Amino acid sequence: MSQSPPTPRPQGRRPGGADTRGEILEAARAVFTESGYGKATIRAIARAAGVDPALVYHYFDNKPSLFAATLELPFDPRSVSTEASSGGGGGARIIAGFLRRWDEADGPPGQALRTVIEAIASSEEAATSVREFLAERVWGEPGAGEDSERFYRFVSLVSAQLVGVAWARYLLRVEPLASATPEQIGEWVGPIIDRLRTGG
Amino acid sequence: MSQSPPTPRPQGRRPGGADTRGEILEAARAVFTESGYGKATIRAIARAAGVDPALVYHYFDNKPSLFAATLELPFDPRSVSTEASSGGGGGARIIAGFLRRWDEADGPPGQALRTVIEAIASSEEAATSVREFLAERVWGEPGAGEDSERFYRFVSLVSAQLVGVAWARYLLRVEPLASATPEQIGEWVGPIIDRLRTGG
Repeated sequence: MSQSPPTPRPQGRRPGGADTRGEILEAARAVFTESGYGKATIRAIARAAGVDPALVYHYFDNKPSLFAATLELPFDPRSVSTEASSGGGGGARIIAGFLRRWDEADGPPGQALRTVIEAIASSEEAATSVREFLAERVWGEPGAGEDSERFYRFVSLVSAQLVGVAWARYLLRVEPLASATPEQIGEWVGPIIDRLRTGG
Repeated sequence: MSQSPPTPRPQGRRPGGADTRGEILEAARAVFTESGYGKATIRAIARAAGVDPALVYHYFDNKPSLFAATLELPFDPRSVSTEASSGGGGGARIIAGFLRRWDEADGPPGQALRTVIEAIASSEEAATSVREFLAERVWGEPGAGEDSERFYRFVSLVSAQLVGVAWARYLLRVEPLASATPEQIGEWVGPIIDRLRTGG
């Protein structure tokens, strides 16, 4: 008795197509940024994407996990992981790439980061979703034979470093971090990440 | 024509006494923590302190500057500055002391920090007040002959470091930062601050 998975059916709005998940994510990113995490609703996101709310729940379990999924693009997890494992001066590239992405995000500078910070500060569920997202999609797992305590200390301290610098640049807006280029900040902070990596 | 400054008059509530400023601050800290920065009102703070709202404005210009003033205790600026200038292993003491203060603040762990983060994320005026508070009360000024560019780079990067670690510990709650003792985290992160200080 083989059963094919249920196919989403049109309900008077646009049905789920090949790119529907991506379109929902794009709409969610815009609504979260504009309304803030707390006031954004699945209904508003579905409306912005031109789909039925049920279809949003089909792709994403709930608001926190949808929120975590919207973080994929600004963080670009793959390139960060690649840089982190490439060693030798990788710290500067991680910092610069991370800040360039927030610099280039839609809306006023720092607006995208503000949404993430506000979400995590205001909702433990959002914090949990972001933590799970980081664990599954950004940090990866310790390699075979790698000291796992050391690995998690490294990734959590690097995350703290990245968020601290972005927070000081975009939200507190303290100089020289507010006006420096991503590359300058990469030069200042990169060696910290390189040393955390080598345990120095 | 000498004029004495206007004396606050009783208005059916307790008049300003020697300790009134401190009592308003204590009430403000409680109201900001409980309601969050956005929903806290001068009226509610005055009520909690048992004084007239006019007296709150007598001591503090507005809500952002009152908010910045409530930060004095948790940051304990003097001891942080003293540690920072003492050199040699001071980084570990700065980190541990900073985290101990947030650990010991009233309310659930991280609640006090959550209020600060939320205030800065939601209000540019609050961000400006906190930035001015840090500049005037915590960072101080570069010493005579000291490179001021280098000085401000140091204090802003240390601030980013402290907030990043506290954010990861209390709000994102990522391990091992969430469960480690302030002293352990001081050992991990202290050398970063020491190196930033020596420009290494």
